[in-house]
Amino acid sequence: MKPKRFALTPGEPAGIGPDLCLLLAEQSQPHPLIAITSCDLLNERAAQLGVAVRLIPVTPDAWPDTPAPAASLYVWDTPLQAPVVAGQLNKANGAFVLETLTRAGQGCMDGHFAGMITAPVHKGVINESGIAFSGHTEFLADLTQTQQVVMMLATGDLRVALVTTHLPLRDVADAITPERIERVTRILHADLVNKFGIAHPRILVCGLNPHAGESGHLGREEIDIIEPTLERLRSDGLDLRGPLPADTLFTPKYLEHCDAVLAMYHDQGLPVLKYKGFGAAVNVTLGLPIIRTSVDHGTALDLAGSGKIDTGSLKVALQTAYQMAETHQ
Amino acid sequence: MKPKRFALTPGEPAGIGPDLCLLLAEQSQPHPLIAITSCDLLNERAAQLGVAVRLIPVTPDAWPDTPAPAASLYVWDTPLQAPVVAGQLNKANGAFVLETLTRAGQGCMDGHFAGMITAPVHKGVINESGIAFSGHTEFLADLTQTQQVVMMLATGDLRVALVTTHLPLRDVADAITPERIERVTRILHADLVNKFGIAHPRILVCGLNPHAGESGHLGREEIDIIEPTLERLRSDGLDLRGPLPADTLFTPKYLEHCDAVLAMYHDQGLPVLKYKGFGAAVNVTLGLPIIRTSVDHGTALDLAGSGKIDTGSLKVALQTAYQMAETHQ
Repeated sequence: MKPKRFALTPGEPAGIGPDLCLLLAEQSQPHPLIAITSCDLLNERAAQLGVAVRLIPVTPDAWPDTPAPAASLYVWDTPLQAPVVAGQLNKANGAFVLETLTRAGQGCMDGHFAGMITAPVHKGVINESGIAFSGHTEFLADLTQTQQVVMMLATGDLRVALVTTHLPLRDVADAITPERIERVTRILHADLVNKFGIAHPRILVCGLNPHAGESGHLGREEIDIIEPTLERLRSDGLDLRGPLPADTLFTPKYLEHCDAVLAMYHDQGLPVLKYKGFGAAVNVTLGLPIIRTSVDHGTALDLAGSGKIDTGSLKVALQTAYQMAETHQ
Repeated sequence: MKPKRFALTPGEPAGIGPDLCLLLAEQSQPHPLIAITSCDLLNERAAQLGVAVRLIPVTPDAWPDTPAPAASLYVWDTPLQAPVVAGQLNKANGAFVLETLTRAGQGCMDGHFAGMITAPVHKGVINESGIAFSGHTEFLADLTQTQQVVMMLATGDLRVALVTTHLPLRDVADAITPERIERVTRILHADLVNKFGIAHPRILVCGLNPHAGESGHLGREEIDIIEPTLERLRSDGLDLRGPLPADTLFTPKYLEHCDAVLAMYHDQGLPVLKYKGFGAAVNVTLGLPIIRTSVDHGTALDLAGSGKIDTGSLKVALQTAYQMAETHQ
């Protein structure tokens, strides 16, 4: 098997992303993994952490085809706009962060990378830098000209995808339209087949309302919107069960017979997933023409440079990207 | 310690409530426990299940003061309106179900019982019988003339109380008012002290929106409503942390330092709780002048008479009521 190259973006330079890359590099990877960031930043953070990692600069005209040895890290050097102090946001580096994402995403599009793995960015400081930015996912959707993407988190054998993501709760009900449910469900189904190698994915779908509306007593969206949409999709061969009450769906009786759960909104699906898997969960963006996985935590500015961090989620994000790339030939 | 008497209501007669009472009676209880239901119903269900339980009829003029022996059950005989077929709802028995609840609730008010434990009712069939009924909790609030009650579920060391309960999702945001948050939080705090014996309860409070609104980017209820209300309550000495993002709150970092979680709505708090504890969770109604606990599952009509049921949740409901009665002298 020929090793595939992967891109790793450390995200916010003042956060724990650089630390994660350095700690990760203590062991070798099964594939060439290229951190897209500043060599200066990594050297400074390594000194602060007291870790010895040899940086190996690489460029698009000479990509490596073998994994870096343990205690070393391939870096596509990308210059900072301003020096970085661990834990201190600086809007001067907003454009730097986006440049690392562009290099990774475009590199995936151009076939240089089999996938990209992202550490957390800080949305606020990028926006303060004068660049409108609503998140990795939206940025990569724009970069790859993708109309609809789907956020899915996974840990162990539990996968949870979301119909709506970062919406105020009061706007959720109106966003649950037949069109959106259909688009999201089709992407989830297709990517479970194509990127996860599940021939016949079984998807459990949550209702919108408590008790999935209890036959209309607690809301009619299940009857008027969700059920008819699922029925139409079933007639196209999708294996969809629901809408089910979210508070009983996440129990062995149901979960044992499913490949993914489709929740209607953020706090309906993610508390269970992170309860089960915090520190070892991965965020996968479905619907993109490229493979992108991410850690499930934030920038943790207060821990940058401390060494008191856990690479568990990053390792799961890498492992998931590697597996997806195997499947998605 | 003098044994206290407790009332057990099997709820919907065609569901698994009678089965649960009979299976439970195979072992003795630490306190006199009185099932409030029909002896005929229990005898028929026992024959169907093939279990031998001796029914011991009791009445208010001669309450028992010692627990019933194993393989026997105290019953305050309450006549059915129509024969019961396991698994088949019959609206003729709607009034019967409510009579059992009235006997239990009024018995608690009058000091006959130290608490009541309820098996599930079927709201739909009671309403079809011509009696407006929106649930145990509301019924008992009316019976005891209680303005505000709070639903809390518990399993192991996790307790989750709800600011709103059985509301369509689109109505939730408008229901999150300072007044409601304050009433619910005060009841939760007071009952953790008085009924659970926690001298200084530490409560984690969820935000309403994803990421607890992310500084207003994903909704302003945290800033405009929740935070000011919590601040006011803190000045009265309540130990409240939040509003926190629901998807990171349910992780050890936070849960290790809390006695209860206050979720803003049903599907934000209960999926995690039931994931952790399904089959061994208890539903507690806070704010009542009486002690009431309940199983966390439904009538399971399809399993009535089958013997394929689990008394785990009922046992936790009993144990919790016993403990609360010890604390709440």
